[in-house]
Amino acid sequence: MKTMILHDFLPSGNGYKIRLLLRFLGQEFSLVEHDITRGETRTEDYLKNINPVGRIPALDVGDGHVLAESNAILLFLAEGTKWLPADKWARAAVYQWLFFEQYEHEPNVAVLRAWMSVKGTPDYGKPLIPMKREAAYNALSIMEDRLKDHDWLVGDDCTIADIALYAYTHVADEGGLDMVRFPAIGRWLARFAQHPAYVPISWKPV
Amino acid sequence: MKTMILHDFLPSGNGYKIRLLLRFLGQEFSLVEHDITRGETRTEDYLKNINPVGRIPALDVGDGHVLAESNAILLFLAEGTKWLPADKWARAAVYQWLFFEQYEHEPNVAVLRAWMSVKGTPDYGKPLIPMKREAAYNALSIMEDRLKDHDWLVGDDCTIADIALYAYTHVADEGGLDMVRFPAIGRWLARFAQHPAYVPISWKPV
Repeated sequence: MKTMILHDFLPSGNGYKIRLLLRFLGQEFSLVEHDITRGETRTEDYLKNINPVGRIPALDVGDGHVLAESNAILLFLAEGTKWLPADKWARAAVYQWLFFEQYEHEPNVAVLRAWMSVKGTPDYGKPLIPMKREAAYNALSIMEDRLKDHDWLVGDDCTIADIALYAYTHVADEGGLDMVRFPAIGRWLARFAQHPAYVPISWKPV
Repeated sequence: MKTMILHDFLPSGNGYKIRLLLRFLGQEFSLVEHDITRGETRTEDYLKNINPVGRIPALDVGDGHVLAESNAILLFLAEGTKWLPADKWARAAVYQWLFFEQYEHEPNVAVLRAWMSVKGTPDYGKPLIPMKREAAYNALSIMEDRLKDHDWLVGDDCTIADIALYAYTHVADEGGLDMVRFPAIGRWLARFAQHPAYVPISWKPV
């Protein structure tokens, strides 16, 4: 198989999800960086040839197939591996966490971090901060409830649900969130980072 | 199998997705309505016994399993049917549209409609309307590009990607969006509604 090319922006948790899973699967890939703070994913060329939605990550798997949407890429790559269980109830639970991540978690946890630590807060965002903070704490509380008496989000093993939620949760403090409130999440973050192929968000393949 | 119970709110496009797929599959179900405008999905009982995230739709499939997240429910119900293709590239494309729907489309197209036609616009929402309108048009343009020369969003047949996007697109005008700009979407909406088991969003099982 041709080497996969990941179009990515290193500080992105959405991109980090794919980097983590590719590492855990032992799949080699090369990385092409696009600085989203400089509009590099909104150029005519990017929109036409990589992702019409104008976002990273996008995974060029060769043969003319370029996949977008981080959690769709996780589902694609994990099929047939232990990272996506075959059992129908476990799969349903994985799906549920993936959509929860994109709807309840990322728009709050990740956006607060982007505003406070990556791009700066735009004018329209300033009045939204208290509401986003409340929604972020709410999403984190739902994770905390599950992780209080389970090691992983679904079943007894780490799955792509954990990868998807790990990406922005482990840097949630960069969005001004007080993570001391969530001790079970803290233990889960530490557990996750013990995977032998784990790499930090700033890592990239040489 | 026990009759499934769908916890729902009739004006919701997210709920409508599930009603449509259950109809298309010929699966009987009963509906329990919860008025989200009156906080009926945020009660202690609802959060504890139905969905901790406090949203509809939630599908009680019996045996103690209650599924949440509309697009996760679609994936669960469609598995093994023609509504979710087996081919890995087609599946990846379906996943991509489902996450696109929840991240790029619903927060703009559906939220504008909720503000203008269902719940009223909250104070914090008023300054966001121009931005949401622009993002909604952008999401619709991406659908239009695909549908210009294809009958369906993925492959040659209607899939859960079409169901997921149909739900809020067919009422996008209720959010103040000018749908005349999108003729290919218009033809696709008409095509979709020709399914013999099609029902309008206001329909519910007796």
